[in-house]
Amino acid sequence: MTPNVLNFSGGPGALPETVLEQAREAIVALPETGVSVLGMSHRSEWFRSILAEAEQNLRALLGLSDGYAITFLQGGSSLQFAMIPMNFATAAFAPPEYVSSGYWSDRATSEAAKVTATNVAWDGRATGYRCLPDLDELDVHGSAAYLHYVSNETVEGLQFPNCDSRPNVPLIADMSSDFLSRPLRPDLYSMMYAHAQKNLGPAGVTVAVLDRSLLERIPDGLPAILDFRTHISHGSNFNTPPVFAIYVLTLVTRWLRFEVGGLEAMQAVNMEKARRLYGALDCLDGVVSIHAANAWRSQMNVAFTFGDSRLDNAFIATARERGIVGLEGHRSIGGLRASLYNAVTPNAVDVLADALMEFGARRT
Amino acid sequence: MTPNVLNFSGGPGALPETVLEQAREAIVALPETGVSVLGMSHRSEWFRSILAEAEQNLRALLGLSDGYAITFLQGGSSLQFAMIPMNFATAAFAPPEYVSSGYWSDRATSEAAKVTATNVAWDGRATGYRCLPDLDELDVHGSAAYLHYVSNETVEGLQFPNCDSRPNVPLIADMSSDFLSRPLRPDLYSMMYAHAQKNLGPAGVTVAVLDRSLLERIPDGLPAILDFRTHISHGSNFNTPPVFAIYVLTLVTRWLRFEVGGLEAMQAVNMEKARRLYGALDCLDGVVSIHAANAWRSQMNVAFTFGDSRLDNAFIATARERGIVGLEGHRSIGGLRASLYNAVTPNAVDVLADALMEFGARRT
Repeated sequence: MTPNVLNFSGGPGALPETVLEQAREAIVALPETGVSVLGMSHRSEWFRSILAEAEQNLRALLGLSDGYAITFLQGGSSLQFAMIPMNFATAAFAPPEYVSSGYWSDRATSEAAKVTATNVAWDGRATGYRCLPDLDELDVHGSAAYLHYVSNETVEGLQFPNCDSRPNVPLIADMSSDFLSRPLRPDLYSMMYAHAQKNLGPAGVTVAVLDRSLLERIPDGLPAILDFRTHISHGSNFNTPPVFAIYVLTLVTRWLRFEVGGLEAMQAVNMEKARRLYGALDCLDGVVSIHAANAWRSQMNVAFTFGDSRLDNAFIATARERGIVGLEGHRSIGGLRASLYNAVTPNAVDVLADALMEFGARRT
Repeated sequence: MTPNVLNFSGGPGALPETVLEQAREAIVALPETGVSVLGMSHRSEWFRSILAEAEQNLRALLGLSDGYAITFLQGGSSLQFAMIPMNFATAAFAPPEYVSSGYWSDRATSEAAKVTATNVAWDGRATGYRCLPDLDELDVHGSAAYLHYVSNETVEGLQFPNCDSRPNVPLIADMSSDFLSRPLRPDLYSMMYAHAQKNLGPAGVTVAVLDRSLLERIPDGLPAILDFRTHISHGSNFNTPPVFAIYVLTLVTRWLRFEVGGLEAMQAVNMEKARRLYGALDCLDGVVSIHAANAWRSQMNVAFTFGDSRLDNAFIATARERGIVGLEGHRSIGGLRASLYNAVTPNAVDVLADALMEFGARRT
């Protein structure tokens, strides 16, 4: 049942084959219930156990204390861009601060500005979103509602290093494209969130991890569906959740915890994949250029170009012959992008690196 | 691959077996692309064609003119309960009017009140949500922003007949539990919406059909994700949509259009299923009681009880032995509920009706 395709898509991305196999069987009938996963009640014991397991796996993987709540939401990061200021940018605090370091954090910043006054703590647009700031060095107002940043810029291929100190205001991170790809210190964050379709599962579900003390700031009177407390107090079962997406996410976290062996093991694999691909690209210096400055290269998304769209398209066609798909760069910057999410295998990266070396060698 | 289970769940509900079979194959590799449907890019040509087909099928099934836009959203009806007043209850109009005729319309009403002043055009709570009003006879303010109602009350098993005249204000209907179960006159509605997990597909996607002239009322400055115009102008591809749920929805609409043969054919099947089940229950008059008053019985959800929870649970156990699942009533009213959504087969209803007759006969 192995597909012959190597998927480097920026998202929705590849999923582990063992997960796909289980999801496939569940479509007709779950082994536990005899009912199709698509027709399972969200109030069933089975689904409650899935929600509980997803949460347990995430707690174990991240090393989360009970001081944090986990909830599963819909609407992707784009809904979080609105919900976060609605919930946390209250009048008792100075405006929230936003780091604008790429396409997605710029979106987060401009959407927040529709809900609240904001401050832009750092703006990388003028320098073409090739570098990132040091979060510790930002000049953030001491009573700002929070500091928001995007830990990995999917479009430009930039990634912040792991945080190692707690900033002076609550730190909120959109980790949509690198969540669960490496260990982190959860105690440094007041909120982490990530949609599923990179490292977690299929599109349609978003994970939010929230410091419970932050919930006390939420004003009353928000529509229930837009209030984080609703989802947390109902155990992510307030209205009908995306049952199938959460089921697959549970399978992925099970794989990560018990087959891969946790986030340190995952990180080791991801570092090796990134090393292999950047190594090939560095060998082709002068033929390809990598979007990110060296210090900020992402281990998840590698944005690069052969310098013109004709060559880029020629490489896409060559790669396609080897079963490689999903290399088109994001429409906002063009070029090529290889995404190395957790489920992309080292073998797939080898095939891509070899294809790059051969294609590039003919042009040096 | 047929599961041995007959699923009468209130939702997520049963899906057609031919749809499940196609969805199952797509999990590993779509025949068209060789890539798992769970890893397909939402920007791919394949997914654009799926979105286009879903829209075409819905237009054909409903007989929709170009004056209506169709969009696919996340968040279920609960997010619509907030978005609708945010988008349409503007200062230029009198408060929107809400019909509160059951559990779900009451939720819609109370959520709207968090966003805007509202009027309750009719309230069935005092009479236990067993009857429905005549929409034409309601005393609705002539400049009300809109009139909102729920066409089928899933919990109580009440269903409005098809509208046959246009009210004097824009009519907005939550059709979550009877959308595509019968023909209707779309020109009478300014907006119809339905989450997928009853008649359309798996949980995680919501369809909204909007009269384009209503869009002109939307105020500027809403968060992009909460503004209907965003989703319509981006062809339901503003942020990553729930690709798999929309794929399954497309398969269901294809089934409904080309295998079932449209909404009139579907209605005929649904009427026959309802006739069979209500017939059995009416034969057991005195042993079982149906929640809905006769005139308002739903063809989609049949809420009934043997009068005490011990007997109800005994019937659930008996039915389970025949492969019947999903009969538990909604937690708000208890008792039993059989949901007869499109994909529930007449044969499954026969099995249920026979089980009821045998169980009931022992108690008359």
